[in-house]
Amino acid sequence: MKKITFLWILILFFMSNLPILAENQMNKELNLIPIPEEITRTFDKFVIDENFTAGITGNPDDRIYQYTTNVLRRLSGRTGLFLSQDFITKTTKAENPQCVIKIDRPGKIVLGEDESYSMNITASGITISSETDLGAMRGLETMLQLLDVDDKGYFLHTVEITDKPRFPWRGLMIDGCRHFMPIDVIKRNLDGMAAVKLNVMHWHLSEDQGFRVECNTFPRLHQLGSDGYYYTQAQIKDVIEYAANRGIRVVPEFDIPGHATSWLVAFPELASAPGPYTIERKWGIFNPTFNPTIDETYEFFDKFFAEMTGLFPDDYMHIGGDENNGKQWDANPDIQAFMKENNIKDNHALQSYFNNKILKILTKYDKKMVGWDEILHPGMPKNIVIQSWRGKESLIESAKQGYQTMLSNGYYIDLIQPTDFHYLNDPLPDDMPLTEDQKKFILGGEATMWAEYISPETIDSRIWPRTAAIAERLWSPGHVKDVESMYKRLDIISFRLEELGLLHIKNYEMMLRRLTANNDTKPLKTLIDVIEPVKIYTRGSQRQYTSYSPLTRVVDAARPDAPVAREFRKNIDIFLTDVKNNSILILLEKDLNLWQTNHSKLVELIKVSPILTEIESLSKDLSDCAEAGLEALNYIKEQKQPGESWIQARQELLEKAQLPRGQTELMIVSAVKKLVNYTEKL
Amino acid sequence: MKKITFLWILILFFMSNLPILAENQMNKELNLIPIPEEITRTFDKFVIDENFTAGITGNPDDRIYQYTTNVLRRLSGRTGLFLSQDFITKTTKAENPQCVIKIDRPGKIVLGEDESYSMNITASGITISSETDLGAMRGLETMLQLLDVDDKGYFLHTVEITDKPRFPWRGLMIDGCRHFMPIDVIKRNLDGMAAVKLNVMHWHLSEDQGFRVECNTFPRLHQLGSDGYYYTQAQIKDVIEYAANRGIRVVPEFDIPGHATSWLVAFPELASAPGPYTIERKWGIFNPTFNPTIDETYEFFDKFFAEMTGLFPDDYMHIGGDENNGKQWDANPDIQAFMKENNIKDNHALQSYFNNKILKILTKYDKKMVGWDEILHPGMPKNIVIQSWRGKESLIESAKQGYQTMLSNGYYIDLIQPTDFHYLNDPLPDDMPLTEDQKKFILGGEATMWAEYISPETIDSRIWPRTAAIAERLWSPGHVKDVESMYKRLDIISFRLEELGLLHIKNYEMMLRRLTANNDTKPLKTLIDVIEPVKIYTRGSQRQYTSYSPLTRVVDAARPDAPVAREFRKNIDIFLTDVKNNSILILLEKDLNLWQTNHSKLVELIKVSPILTEIESLSKDLSDCAEAGLEALNYIKEQKQPGESWIQARQELLEKAQLPRGQTELMIVSAVKKLVNYTEKL
Repeated sequence: MKKITFLWILILFFMSNLPILAENQMNKELNLIPIPEEITRTFDKFVIDENFTAGITGNPDDRIYQYTTNVLRRLSGRTGLFLSQDFITKTTKAENPQCVIKIDRPGKIVLGEDESYSMNITASGITISSETDLGAMRGLETMLQLLDVDDKGYFLHTVEITDKPRFPWRGLMIDGCRHFMPIDVIKRNLDGMAAVKLNVMHWHLSEDQGFRVECNTFPRLHQLGSDGYYYTQAQIKDVIEYAANRGIRVVPEFDIPGHATSWLVAFPELASAPGPYTIERKWGIFNPTFNPTIDETYEFFDKFFAEMTGLFPDDYMHIGGDENNGKQWDANPDIQAFMKENNIKDNHALQSYFNNKILKILTKYDKKMVGWDEILHPGMPKNIVIQSWRGKESLIESAKQGYQTMLSNGYYIDLIQPTDFHYLNDPLPDDMPLTEDQKKFILGGEATMWAEYISPETIDSRIWPRTAAIAERLWSPGHVKDVESMYKRLDIISFRLEELGLLHIKNYEMMLRRLTANNDTKPLKTLIDVIEPVKIYTRGSQRQYTSYSPLTRVVDAARPDAPVAREFRKNIDIFLTDVKNNSILILLEKDLNLWQTNHSKLVELIKVSPILTEIESLSKDLSDCAEAGLEALNYIKEQKQPGESWIQARQELLEKAQLPRGQTELMIVSAVKKLVNYTEKL
Repeated sequence: MKKITFLWILILFFMSNLPILAENQMNKELNLIPIPEEITRTFDKFVIDENFTAGITGNPDDRIYQYTTNVLRRLSGRTGLFLSQDFITKTTKAENPQCVIKIDRPGKIVLGEDESYSMNITASGITISSETDLGAMRGLETMLQLLDVDDKGYFLHTVEITDKPRFPWRGLMIDGCRHFMPIDVIKRNLDGMAAVKLNVMHWHLSEDQGFRVECNTFPRLHQLGSDGYYYTQAQIKDVIEYAANRGIRVVPEFDIPGHATSWLVAFPELASAPGPYTIERKWGIFNPTFNPTIDETYEFFDKFFAEMTGLFPDDYMHIGGDENNGKQWDANPDIQAFMKENNIKDNHALQSYFNNKILKILTKYDKKMVGWDEILHPGMPKNIVIQSWRGKESLIESAKQGYQTMLSNGYYIDLIQPTDFHYLNDPLPDDMPLTEDQKKFILGGEATMWAEYISPETIDSRIWPRTAAIAERLWSPGHVKDVESMYKRLDIISFRLEELGLLHIKNYEMMLRRLTANNDTKPLKTLIDVIEPVKIYTRGSQRQYTSYSPLTRVVDAARPDAPVAREFRKNIDIFLTDVKNNSILILLEKDLNLWQTNHSKLVELIKVSPILTEIESLSKDLSDCAEAGLEALNYIKEQKQPGESWIQARQELLEKAQLPRGQTELMIVSAVKKLVNYTEKL
């Protein structure tokens, strides 16, 4: 058999002497996310049938047995095959397993642990070799992604892979505070993370809107600061174990000294202004801040972290440190006097003073400190980690100064930006102005799922599938950046993630049912498929939201990167480079006809479901835009100039259609605009 | 305003002087499940807008505050209204709330606690009054079911209700053993239970296939008996609290002395035959049984129940006791000698001896004993509860003998029988051969969700919506038994249950996506909408299943009581009483045309998704049946006899089509048969 080497996404096909795999299969790109460091396809098949068995050799940790058993069940679930192998344990061994997993030693759940693996799949068997069980887990996920089908049944593509991550810190931050996210939300997302080889779950656990951890030392924290919505210590231990069983670290964040309202409900005496305080219900940056000038604050945190550093085993403890507006400090004469006395020149320096004291506490309890980029300050020692969120400058600056650092700026998935924006956002692009030594300080990055506008029902649709693209950015070599390929593969992984219990597709359908009061969902789906929630921070500026506002409206069902709209925009671009392309024309007309006739149907739905009233005019605009698009296509087909008044009226219509309604926006307007503008040149 | 009294389902409409509610709203049956004991409609509206607030007075338990807060969120979620009220706590009180909840005292989570409530909804406000907070919870669920919509927006139907349950024990048993059901499965089903006023979650925790509770006294039980799939004590406490917050008792079941293989993996010395034992992987009745003749057994259970009676606070402890086949006892000479010596005449008597010893242990730890009906034996004291599962005889016999008892026979929802079968199964029908005093021993009933053929993915579709009908049977007055009304209301509640996170609809859609490898699901949906899994115990007899067999095939996506097929069968019956009924004819032809053309589409899907191969011939039969049905309709329309050979060929086809494939069966064959048979009489 002739082997052909692939350099990741650069796929070359030499079709000679490839007897086994059907031609359409050979031409097909493999559905891998993230793409491995090195992969060689051999264009053969490893047939999956009921005799498939796996065996583990070497010196692994216990957890790989259950992981591999789960992989068997997932394989069986997708294929319907009654696999002969039951539960894999240390004591039950398959004879001559088809899939041999060799592991040198148990992996540690620590930053920088070896996650590499090599995998060889031939027609006759599978070998996965790895230093640690974490590497084997990553390899097993790759193996599952190689499952395919032809007219003879299920098979794995044969490949040779050597793979390891580009960055050691590949995270997803989940904000469990602004809206409480129960344990099942966390667990199913840990499953999703493992499927795309992410390895850090950064858990945002305290906020103005809620203190979410059961605290034995200061039980008033969760009793008064959480409305009853907090994680018990037993639940937290359970999550940590669940994560570790998937090779994922759990890094807790207690956000101080700002973002601290919920703590100060219980301990107003530690605030920088007199209380009492109540749990914050709105979104934004608020004044309540710990008082960094009194001993009681540090006595409190010493006891607090004594408990929490025991609860969370990871080497790192995140102290937040962001968005302290300093207003309480400015207004407090004692604090001002303290600053003067101690020669602390501004609030940033005062926060740095606070951070240094907290750092000493954390160091005493054997923890390394992580914080948002505000903690970067000349006074800080070099053994802290800076999480860059406000811009890349802090990432570069941290690395230059010799701080370990990671990127979240550009990975704010709560801002509903398109996947390719996040995908192309590289922590370490080729033109990074850093020396090779400085580059080593860049540990990776984290997608951040802030929870102002999400509930347990909608969180998955904000995280997935976009975070899989970020996972690829952080795992795969930097030159893997073909956006079209990424989107194609994302469609597959998105659907595959459902097997893990993720609800990003299911809940879309459910929300359509609820929004239509269980009537025919099609007209609403037609609309929502081409709209998106407004981006960046405009949602909150358009309407006053609180922590108890409904998250069940059209804007919540609408998803980032609306795929139908994206496809339409792409087709318009293709069409306008070649207006004789009839196959594209037919696709465009099909879309436009659907939209043009949609509004009259949606109006009927609104009558039985008033929750839809707010998007009535948006729906009307979609139909009007579609009509304009169809008219423009006719002019183009007939190569006929439409006349200025037609053009002007349509452009006005499109301007109007661009306006958000119900905090959503039509994502096909720009494309229709291109069509209309094109007619000017006819 | 004129008030009109309704006696439950007997709905009479006097349309005079009813100014407010639109006529179509007045004609509409209210979507209540279960139907309250007494309800008076006043045909007005209580308008729901952003000013809606609720307040709690009296002397309630803390838990009602969070329950009511949740109800606010559900109301807000359905309507999209930004309600002004945030989190309801003891210290935050709304001024002049529109909904006043009056509670006399905190309810206890015990059998027979008062769950009654009265509710008065007028155009100007809502009052819910109850003795305990449990009653208020039941009332709030009723209130949510009264939410409706007209062209002016959202409103509650105005009513006067006095309501209380017919039976005090209204349960759902979940088998967490045969397939492990993680905590999120349990919690979302507790939410579903509360929505339909069920009040007992009977948790089946030990089986041949798994011991599922962390046991500190004997950790080898969960370590060796669970494959790592067990509930930690922290998780169990969490579930008990979660249930209590919804007014639901948790009754644990440890099934002994049979069904005990997984225990004996750790303690073979307590078995009635020499070990070693391994966890059972198949389904059925197995031999491994505790040895009731040795002291060590009772020393073990004394320590075991000392721990477990502390973990589970309910007054009742279920010891199973079913399906002990006695084979190990028969084969063990020591046991035979013991029986002879102690004058124990048969295995049933020996089990009764065992039960009596266990009862003493449970009594010592202040627990009452519950068991399956096998524990009924002349030797047993009267303070035990008998759960009748093999037939109603044991229910009647228990009540006659003065044992408290409840019904599960006829509520075995794992057997995939139609809802109306369960619905009409009454623990206490009018013709029950019992005296009034004896009737009092009948506590209620339990739906039983045995887990041989369900996974966390499919369990909800087996429980819901059918269990809502059982809930109505156990709550509502006995004369509430209109099957058509029940099915109509069930459609609504089924869709409403989604708001609680239940996956019975969502996962159907997801399974269709997976079964079609994310291609167009319509042809498969068309088929699965008219098939059901085979009933009773035939699934296992048609194919050898184990605990690790896939539960992702067509049979698992297929649902009990396939609604499209049921509608078709109903329409056929209507049509055959009046073959000139053109509107029904059109519906029938639409269905049949869809099915007739479906197979050719499904064949294309099978090519890309071999998991579907097993239902290829079933799909062909659906199309052939549909063709036969269309031909029969033509003969009927033309009043023309089709000739004997046509009839015979079609009858043969229908016989063949009746045969299960892939453990599923077509549910429209009997109806097509009626059509074909009708042509004989033309």
